[in-house]
Amino acid sequence: MIQKEKTVQSETIFSGKVFDIHSDEATIGDDPNLQHREVIIHSGGVSIVAEHDEKIVLVRQYRYGAGEILFENPAGKLDHGNEDILSAAKRELEEETGYHAETWTSLGYIYSTPAICTEKIYLFFAQNLTSGKPHPDEGEIVEYFELPKEEVFKMIKSGEICDAKTICGLMRAYKL
Amino acid sequence: MIQKEKTVQSETIFSGKVFDIHSDEATIGDDPNLQHREVIIHSGGVSIVAEHDEKIVLVRQYRYGAGEILFENPAGKLDHGNEDILSAAKRELEEETGYHAETWTSLGYIYSTPAICTEKIYLFFAQNLTSGKPHPDEGEIVEYFELPKEEVFKMIKSGEICDAKTICGLMRAYKL
Repeated sequence: MIQKEKTVQSETIFSGKVFDIHSDEATIGDDPNLQHREVIIHSGGVSIVAEHDEKIVLVRQYRYGAGEILFENPAGKLDHGNEDILSAAKRELEEETGYHAETWTSLGYIYSTPAICTEKIYLFFAQNLTSGKPHPDEGEIVEYFELPKEEVFKMIKSGEICDAKTICGLMRAYKL
Repeated sequence: MIQKEKTVQSETIFSGKVFDIHSDEATIGDDPNLQHREVIIHSGGVSIVAEHDEKIVLVRQYRYGAGEILFENPAGKLDHGNEDILSAAKRELEEETGYHAETWTSLGYIYSTPAICTEKIYLFFAQNLTSGKPHPDEGEIVEYFELPKEEVFKMIKSGEICDAKTICGLMRAYKL
């Protein structure tokens, strides 16, 4: 039987700009033996499927972990204090693309790397957009595009779109 | 214009069981200014959409990062020396479910967390399965199930399936 684990000791061994690392000891169910766990603590994020005139709004940016320039849905970290999740999604869409959306639908959440990282990404579907001026965060270099839906799905198939949260958002928005 | 970044200094500040952390300095394009980057170094993995008699083979296990018991495609880390990627996929499917597959199709790759982690997950579609005996890794507690395709898609919609790599694999296998 699959049992939950309980953290019984936790030490912060790295505190970074975007994530921390905890070195933990955990027990599984009623078993008193300690299991060593190393976990990345991340505040979570939002990712937005934004639809405009039957097209999808995508951003393109360099991603240091991947070492590649990727196409993605507009997205960002939850790190602005007590900001609620929907407000964070609205803020990120506007910062990266300038768009405001009239209609917001929750698409639930996903875990990007559930074994080793706490990051939970909340997905949204934004429709009925009106344009504005993008104003990315300091140091954030982002281009944005609008592509026909069918082209976006071809890019997922060909591998040109390979960002997990982007594929998950598009699946929940259109393919279920 | 979006430009690639070049790592000019790199220091390993944590070496763990599953991942390392590097603290890097990078330059963007021709700009000589250094940008500080903290990155999780991960060996990458494989994740398999396994189809048996019109059903999907899913595993269920506790994930420490998520703090939840999740349904996922069979999957695992690339950490067995020089093992090629397809061999790793075959090994993981067999370890977690006992199944051998006759037909293997590449579904490309995804990045789970491209901003901060190097993890690249190779997705496969395994068909024409024959059953065997699972033999999970020491300490790995996994249950496996076979569920009708339509039920699996309902679980993605309801949020019961929230593992990113699993959703991406099912999208590339069936929905494009």
